[in-house]
Amino acid sequence: MKVLIIGGVAGGMSAATRLRRLNEKAEVVVIERGPHVSFANCGLPYHIGGTIEEREKLLLQTPESLHARFNLDVRIQTEALKVNPEEHIVVLKDLRSGKTYEEKYDRLILSPGASPIRPPLPGIEHALTLRNIPDMDRINRHLENSRAEQAVVIGGGFIGLEMAENLVHRGLKVHVVEAGPQVLAPLDPEMAALVQKEVVKQGIKLHLMDALHSIEDQGKRVVLKSGETIPADLIILAIGVKPEVALAKDAGLKLGERGGILESDTLQTSDPDIYAVGDAIEKINLAGEAGLIPLAWSANRQGRLIADHISGRTIHVGHQLGTAIVKVFDLTVATTGLNEKQLQKSGRPFAVVHTHASSHASYYPGAETLSLKLLFNRTTREIYGAQAIGKEGADKRIDVIATAIRGGILADELSDLELAYAPPYSSAKDPVNMLGYMAENLLEGLPTVQWHEVNPEDILLDVRDPHEYTRGHLRGAINIPLNQLRSRHQELPAGPITAYCQVGLRGYLATRLLRQLGHEVRNLDGGYTTFKLGRPDQVTEPVKS
Amino acid sequence: MKVLIIGGVAGGMSAATRLRRLNEKAEVVVIERGPHVSFANCGLPYHIGGTIEEREKLLLQTPESLHARFNLDVRIQTEALKVNPEEHIVVLKDLRSGKTYEEKYDRLILSPGASPIRPPLPGIEHALTLRNIPDMDRINRHLENSRAEQAVVIGGGFIGLEMAENLVHRGLKVHVVEAGPQVLAPLDPEMAALVQKEVVKQGIKLHLMDALHSIEDQGKRVVLKSGETIPADLIILAIGVKPEVALAKDAGLKLGERGGILESDTLQTSDPDIYAVGDAIEKINLAGEAGLIPLAWSANRQGRLIADHISGRTIHVGHQLGTAIVKVFDLTVATTGLNEKQLQKSGRPFAVVHTHASSHASYYPGAETLSLKLLFNRTTREIYGAQAIGKEGADKRIDVIATAIRGGILADELSDLELAYAPPYSSAKDPVNMLGYMAENLLEGLPTVQWHEVNPEDILLDVRDPHEYTRGHLRGAINIPLNQLRSRHQELPAGPITAYCQVGLRGYLATRLLRQLGHEVRNLDGGYTTFKLGRPDQVTEPVKS
Ligand SMILES: Cc1cc2nc3c(=O)[nH]c(=O)nc-3n(C[C@H](O)[C@H](O)[C@H](O)COP(=O)(O)OP(=O)(O)OC[C@H]3O[C@@H](n4cnc5c(N)ncnc54)[C@H](O)[C@@H]3O)c2cc1C
Ligand SMILES: Cc1cc2nc3c(=O)[nH]c(=O)nc-3n(C[C@H](O)[C@H](O)[C@H](O)COP(=O)(O)OP(=O)(O)OC[C@H]3O[C@@H](n4cnc5c(N)ncnc54)[C@H](O)[C@@H]3O)c2cc1C
Ligand SMILES: CC(C)(COP(=O)(O)OP(=O)(O)OC[C@H]1O[C@@H](n2cnc3c(N)ncnc32)[C@H](O)[C@@H]1OP(=O)(O)O)[C@@H](O)C(=O)NCCC(=O)NCCS
Ligand SMILES: CC(C)(COP(=O)(O)OP(=O)(O)OC[C@H]1O[C@@H](n2cnc3c(N)ncnc32)[C@H](O)[C@@H]1OP(=O)(O)O)[C@@H](O)C(=O)NCCC(=O)NCCS
Repeated sequence: MKVLIIGGVAGGMSAATRLRRLNEKAEVVVIERGPHVSFANCGLPYHIGGTIEEREKLLLQTPESLHARFNLDVRIQTEALKVNPEEHIVVLKDLRSGKTYEEKYDRLILSPGASPIRPPLPGIEHALTLRNIPDMDRINRHLENSRAEQAVVIGGGFIGLEMAENLVHRGLKVHVVEAGPQVLAPLDPEMAALVQKEVVKQGIKLHLMDALHSIEDQGKRVVLKSGETIPADLIILAIGVKPEVALAKDAGLKLGERGGILESDTLQTSDPDIYAVGDAIEKINLAGEAGLIPLAWSANRQGRLIADHISGRTIHVGHQLGTAIVKVFDLTVATTGLNEKQLQKSGRPFAVVHTHASSHASYYPGAETLSLKLLFNRTTREIYGAQAIGKEGADKRIDVIATAIRGGILADELSDLELAYAPPYSSAKDPVNMLGYMAENLLEGLPTVQWHEVNPEDILLDVRDPHEYTRGHLRGAINIPLNQLRSRHQELPAGPITAYCQVGLRGYLATRLLRQLGHEVRNLDGGYTTFKLGRPDQVTEPVKS
Repeated sequence: MKVLIIGGVAGGMSAATRLRRLNEKAEVVVIERGPHVSFANCGLPYHIGGTIEEREKLLLQTPESLHARFNLDVRIQTEALKVNPEEHIVVLKDLRSGKTYEEKYDRLILSPGASPIRPPLPGIEHALTLRNIPDMDRINRHLENSRAEQAVVIGGGFIGLEMAENLVHRGLKVHVVEAGPQVLAPLDPEMAALVQKEVVKQGIKLHLMDALHSIEDQGKRVVLKSGETIPADLIILAIGVKPEVALAKDAGLKLGERGGILESDTLQTSDPDIYAVGDAIEKINLAGEAGLIPLAWSANRQGRLIADHISGRTIHVGHQLGTAIVKVFDLTVATTGLNEKQLQKSGRPFAVVHTHASSHASYYPGAETLSLKLLFNRTTREIYGAQAIGKEGADKRIDVIATAIRGGILADELSDLELAYAPPYSSAKDPVNMLGYMAENLLEGLPTVQWHEVNPEDILLDVRDPHEYTRGHLRGAINIPLNQLRSRHQELPAGPITAYCQVGLRGYLATRLLRQLGHEVRNLDGGYTTFKLGRPDQVTEPVKS
């Protein structure tokens, strides 16, 4: 059995090592165009920023180490030029000698990854992208040689924000340009607003709803679609990646709508002797739709699964949650499953709860606000997704919810998860439990209203204390503090009420109370905090005292 | 509907507030013997140590605040003396006036908690216990007045170790005395050994397999069973708690074998109009056995469930994992489900995997070793429990596994959990995924051997590098580094081999390889690291160079 693997990093090398573990006799050849294999793509921005000081730390393996341990035939600086599926042959080119030669295979694994998108705009050749070690070295050299003071990052996605942060750490003044109305597209807008606040707080100039028009003056000036120009010593292009499918397409393998390689649930392409893995392929999300989920977890996992299948084991790849996480300065931003946009598109009926909880017991030092959003089916109670943002514990809560989704745990059953509690780590009711309770109340029929649904015709009832109300409230809201509601509810005008507090808890208590007292009332989910993130124009200016 | 609640802290007050949320008209009376309600028991040690500076932070609510918000009738310094189930009456005593009176109820909730165990030993009156605010104040006063320099903590459980740590923070020299062979009984011994190392490293003198014999010299000297005496300025007794069942017993309610109040899965006692919750009741663990799980999560959760049931909702309490966590200086120690001792007792066939992973990508600064243990059924693959110890990320992994257990995810399916990965948070294969892979390999029949099973007759093969071998190895082991095994395996004597490395990964690779080369070989699970923790006497002394 001879297995040829194209691409020697996450997906490809995971397949190679597992193949060897299962089969000492298989011939395993790994072809890699670049000068490195098995490097830590995900660490690249952090070496630029200086957090990861030693460049060597990013080079996890070498062809030699992989040969010594796994008896792999790893050929770097070798490009696969063409696949001939009928004859089971790949044409390879040694990029050092320029020589071209052929290699036979019994099974072929494509793990060519993805390449940064480069729109054909004037001056685009001056923008640098980041995908591999040479890219990183190039950026570092540029920074060293140019004594750069100001950088423009095009794209407010995961890699764009990581680069922006790391350039700030390196002492640059940084602009981020994002064509969409928000950063980090997997988040819903009111959650992304929290990230934007952080980015701006850290001194980054954020240009939303604006895009690159051209690069002028030998790469020293960025011109935006809006006409704005920004002087730049360094321009990073990070508007996304596109699957590397040239080889696959040329070989006649089926591609999907989203431009990735199309596969069966055994990770075989339309040619059963050719497998594909990683950023190059299309994956199925929780809504059953094909999408690109260019993340390391699935590349590593599916690389292993391919090796299993080639070795005669049964595998089955189902849908993928696309759990993702990114550090943005002091914040951790994490998400799993589907967001509102995806749910709307898929036509699924969903409900939402937001909370702004304490990352651990509030009486124990260091507790930080953790903003959480849960999306679930209003009828079947199935969890669709979640988003978490905070300085502490966001990763934990998203991992728990991702696990809950995988285990078929329903939204209201999150309350029943026995999570570890001691004051430094959580509360006796963990924020995830709280999401479960909130979901239960909503499913029971206790009405809530989302930040974008607030009806200005409703009576807006602020149940916080007067000093909170004074600091800022929903335009038109009246204030009766929760603890006075039992005795003062007669003051409320007739008509439907939207009650709210700071994060939703007191608003919920008010809703329970007022309903029993005969009022028609809904609670503003996530309270003033979520509302203000989503509709900052609809709250009073902070009154400075 | 009149509901009387005895005990105004975790279980009782959770029931009271939920009752009010569901029913504005119910009469809810909360009876509390002590001077405080709704306080943060779990924070008490940290105020003694000074981490939680303000005492007020521990007092989450007062009778007044609970009246204002929830219209509760909260009576502190009032003791319930007797329950008369037939007449639905409780006899109460106002501890300030000394007056006794009766109160009727429709439903009664017992949430009296547990009290620290006090063995009748000579001088025991000099030992202080910690359960509530007055206890804490007493310890603090003692510390202030006596200018204590040395403390003895009797008991190496959760509260014992929390107290020990906090007394160290307060500048005391601390001894911990534990009758058993290890601290933290829910852990298995090789895992507890890690905690013991930390405790000793932090300057605590640990006395295992020794117990309190008597306290002499007006509380200034502790005498142990072994005969050893320790001078003491402060003696803390923390050998566990026993359920407060006097009222329940006297009222004729059924008690269980473990001494707690016995209940149905609707949290009703043998009298259906009387519910009980919290530390006073018996719970059913994953093995179906009754036990005491005196933790805040279940008190809070079940308090709410009782209110639901009283309000006519359907509830069902199943078994409990007993997920628990404690900070021990720089370490986090967390556990869920069953440990080896419990599994052995219950007669369930189980398998174990250990790993010592990196808490996040090892190339990103701050990564720390995270030791994990997973227990599962060898046939059904059901997860039974897990233990985690490390400086970072132990809480997250235990919460994920607790969720997986609740969701019926099988041991090998842990590999398929899509957990959030970026370098500051995890690895592309999270340590929990790795447990899944390891479980899969074991279930597939790839043999491992546990630290306590190593057969000294076996050929012990150390596959680490020579410098690791030299630093310390299993007595009698030979050394062939993994990367030389393909070419040197003929050197191996005939007979069954136990291969090992530092944490188990290279030993696993060696096992895969050697089996294919025709050897009979097993991998030492958890490697040298776990072995040394469990059997420190069976390794060579570190060779100082
Ligand atoms: C800066 C950066 C940060 C990231 N951070 C994260 C993160 O925090 N978390 C996360 O989950 N993911 C992150 N990712 C994504 C993650 O690295 C990828 O999802 C993963 O590497 C995909 O694996 P792959 O095997 O599909 O592709 P790659 O790892 O990109 O490997 C593909 C390899 O194939 C080679 N190749 C392509 N075509 C040919 C050819 N014709 N012949 C020979 N060789 C060829 C390429 O040179 C390349 O080295 C990050 C990526 C980058 C660039
Ligand atoms: C120091 C300490 C640290 C802890 N740390 C943690 C931790 O980190 N994590 C965790 O999960 N758990 C922890 N716990 C345990 C947790 O506090 C308990 O599990 C929880 O409080 C149990 O709730 P409960 O309602 O059953 O009892 P309690 O909260 O103890 O409340 C019982 C109340 O009933 C009152 N009472 C008893 N009898 C009568 C009577 N006859 N009449 C009137 N009143 C009566 C008592 O005065 C007491 O205030 C800790 C406990 C202590 C003491
Ligand atoms: C480095 C690389 C080749 C490693 O691949 P790998 O050998 O599959 O992975 P690991 O070294 O993590 O080892 C995992 C194996 O060890 C086993 N293992 C791990 N810890 C173990 C332990 N303590 N005891 C026993 N076995 C253990 C696992 O079961 C698994 O084996 P299996 O797949 O046969 O079940 C590959 O991950 C790679 O190229 N990574 C860099 C690129 C990348 O991932 N980039 C994106 C992220 S930055
Ligand atoms: C303080 C105490 C009375 C609080 O009880 P509680 O009111 O049940 O709990 P919380 O204040 O956390 O509020 C939870 C409620 O608010 C709801 N809620 C929480 N956040 C919300 C939000 N953002 N929006 C809407 N509702 C929210 C929950 O759904 C829940 O209501 P439900 O039970 O009706 O579903 C009780 O926990 C207590 O006495 N604690 C101290 C003692 C203790 O627990 N000790 C051990 C640990 S130290």
